[in-house]
Amino acid sequence: AIVDATLSVLGVRNDLEGLRVLITAGPTVEPIDPVRYISNYSSGKSGYALAVAAARRGAQVTLVSGPTSLDPPKDVCFIGVRTAVDMLAACQRPFEKADIAIFAAAVADMRPATAADHKLKKGVDDDALAGIPLVKNPDVLATLAAQKDRQVVVGYAAETDDILENARRKLKAKHADVIVANDVGEGKAFNANDNKIWFVDEEGAEELPRMTKAALADVILNKALDCMR
Amino acid sequence: AIVDATLSVLGVRNDLEGLRVLITAGPTVEPIDPVRYISNYSSGKSGYALAVAAARRGAQVTLVSGPTSLDPPKDVCFIGVRTAVDMLAACQRPFEKADIAIFAAAVADMRPATAADHKLKKGVDDDALAGIPLVKNPDVLATLAAQKDRQVVVGYAAETDDILENARRKLKAKHADVIVANDVGEGKAFNANDNKIWFVDEEGAEELPRMTKAALADVILNKALDCMR
Repeated sequence: AIVDATLSVLGVRNDLEGLRVLITAGPTVEPIDPVRYISNYSSGKSGYALAVAAARRGAQVTLVSGPTSLDPPKDVCFIGVRTAVDMLAACQRPFEKADIAIFAAAVADMRPATAADHKLKKGVDDDALAGIPLVKNPDVLATLAAQKDRQVVVGYAAETDDILENARRKLKAKHADVIVANDVGEGKAFNANDNKIWFVDEEGAEELPRMTKAALADVILNKALDCMR
Repeated sequence: AIVDATLSVLGVRNDLEGLRVLITAGPTVEPIDPVRYISNYSSGKSGYALAVAAARRGAQVTLVSGPTSLDPPKDVCFIGVRTAVDMLAACQRPFEKADIAIFAAAVADMRPATAADHKLKKGVDDDALAGIPLVKNPDVLATLAAQKDRQVVVGYAAETDDILENARRKLKAKHADVIVANDVGEGKAFNANDNKIWFVDEEGAEELPRMTKAALADVILNKALDCMR
């Protein structure tokens, strides 16, 4: 019993053994030209913590990540991508095989309509430098969740306003089983080592206390496991 | 003589003792809203290598850096900034006191005309998400070089086309003493550990062999010292 309790505290239970888990992480990067891009402040820490925790608990993990300053975790199949289009393509096969898919990446909703093949120059490309026309990116979460059969799908809502309302809308619009809602106002989530989240599912919203992203990872995996039952 | 040669190879000469050196590094980050931004692929490696080398050679170094994944070097006064506007403000006082100023940062030429105070949402902020109007940023190099008295000013030209022609134009337009021209086509400079540069000054262009950014740092500092004489 003492050993069990210790293993439980250390989180080394192999309760995800035999399960395939797909996790997306980090921002996407959408090129304007060969040197400039549009991105967001996602650090990848939440998604990488999920990958580490899932692998430690015995899952076969595929981590599809936009560019971050983090090292790919050990014992994880790591696929590095840049754009939303690339991320969707990289997720397709792993999603088909997954039991749990957690979309923690902050995928750019929009991308520049065209990416210039040379560095835009003042005095030469002034029209292009006056404004950046945008087009919609594919919605990675919604596209894959629409294909789900057995997969438990966990989405993220990174919001600065009306957090729960936006999360409830996402839950329905994207056919996710759970939305992890969080407040990404200045410094509150992106790049922090802890975070405060709400689980939003068909049964309502559950507020969790602020905790480290490592601790949150186990809580989120537990929630996904609950959804499998 | 053997000791001298060894010290020279190790680059531990204190030949910059008594000199104040201002170095800018990294990209700037220009906010679109609280989570999205425009930036560029500058890793900061060139500028940080310059700061390390200048400090090792005895200079009093101020490093003004945009966000990078690098740790601030030791023995350097480090000022972290985000936007071009912040970078110019942070450089003003150190520039006034500097003997050598090396502008290695990749400063965004343009920034979003307005930064939204909330995360832009599809279905709500569709106009703002259809395109990003841009306005000109202040030119950090040109603004400060216009104020120079004794300072040796080294600028950078990060180009994908017509590298030397663009560098010569920059040398004149920005009143720099030397332009370090480099080719930032895919993978050739940004985030690499080595680089190939040309020095462009009033006397013409000098092509250097590809070398590590650490070695280049000493070569660029030597060039700046030459300009002081």
